[in-house]
Amino acid sequence: MMTLYFAPGSSSMAPHIALHEVGAEFKAVPMSFKQRDMDKPGYLAINPEGKVPTLVIDGRPLTEVAAILFYLAQTHPDAGLWPESIEDQAQALSWMSFTAATLHPARAKGVDHAKAMFAIADRRLGGGEWAVGRYSIADIHLFRLFWRFHGSMRPAPEDFPHLSAHYARMMGRDAVKRTIAAEAAVGYELPG
Amino acid sequence: MMTLYFAPGSSSMAPHIALHEVGAEFKAVPMSFKQRDMDKPGYLAINPEGKVPTLVIDGRPLTEVAAILFYLAQTHPDAGLWPESIEDQAQALSWMSFTAATLHPARAKGVDHAKAMFAIADRRLGGGEWAVGRYSIADIHLFRLFWRFHGSMRPAPEDFPHLSAHYARMMGRDAVKRTIAAEAAVGYELPG
Repeated sequence: MMTLYFAPGSSSMAPHIALHEVGAEFKAVPMSFKQRDMDKPGYLAINPEGKVPTLVIDGRPLTEVAAILFYLAQTHPDAGLWPESIEDQAQALSWMSFTAATLHPARAKGVDHAKAMFAIADRRLGGGEWAVGRYSIADIHLFRLFWRFHGSMRPAPEDFPHLSAHYARMMGRDAVKRTIAAEAAVGYELPG
Repeated sequence: MMTLYFAPGSSSMAPHIALHEVGAEFKAVPMSFKQRDMDKPGYLAINPEGKVPTLVIDGRPLTEVAAILFYLAQTHPDAGLWPESIEDQAQALSWMSFTAATLHPARAKGVDHAKAMFAIADRRLGGGEWAVGRYSIADIHLFRLFWRFHGSMRPAPEDFPHLSAHYARMMGRDAVKRTIAAEAAVGYELPG
């Protein structure tokens, strides 16, 4: 049994999409920033950083977006969310590491810095349909960050042409639509 | 042919150790922060963020520590640097994501924050010998961060008992000794 602890619109959105992509059965537990759910002892026992997401697998917690995405892709090979060659797999991890360590904290460093980092992502994405050849978990992780940036900054499509096209492709996917609908039903209360 | 672009003592130390662990032939190109080598057009063409490390594989650049470590472990299975089960592999990625996105930037947020984050790592490491069952790339990545923290803060062993024991185990490994010797011979010029 898998349980996802999530906060609508936060980093946990990426594993939430992946759970829908792979068609897994799971329980989703909404967490509230306002009610400080992440700081409560019961949650800190499974995630000592007090962050979302956590995926609990038969009682064992797994933290960090890239790790959860990898686990879901690997345990559901039919979903095809993990590239085939070792080098492409490494490029997917490179994208996810860049997304977590560079794109994610960029917002806190100001709008200009965030735009510069997304410009790097836009050039790296280039004219290809997906981050690494075929659709993969790297696309889900990247999309979550641009979705958030897009929602707050409303960039013109020509400012980030490749990310904007990628965003449109992602928004067309059933798993994305279902995740957004499920999270919106809980309600957004994103921190600053 | 593989080429590692590195700066002594920086994040690139982790892939440098891994290259020694797997026994790969490689060329190591030292980069100077003082001479702004990372900002030069030739380097930005292979790493648009202007960071080290980059591993160039037959002309194709691979960026981000976790991705390079994964590539080296996967292409050298005899070295045994990658856990066997999918869940252990996911836990190794979780450690590396935490290391890159939480431990690495912690220093810039002040000493107290860095100590708090290493305390979380210490508790997570616990009494086990290695981060995830057997020795893996997660240990190499974690070690590089604690090595840097240890070098500047000189924490008492009892402040981080598990990380300190892990550090001692890592310092005993040939690949670590060889990497430290090779990087010290180039000379440290770590940025603030």
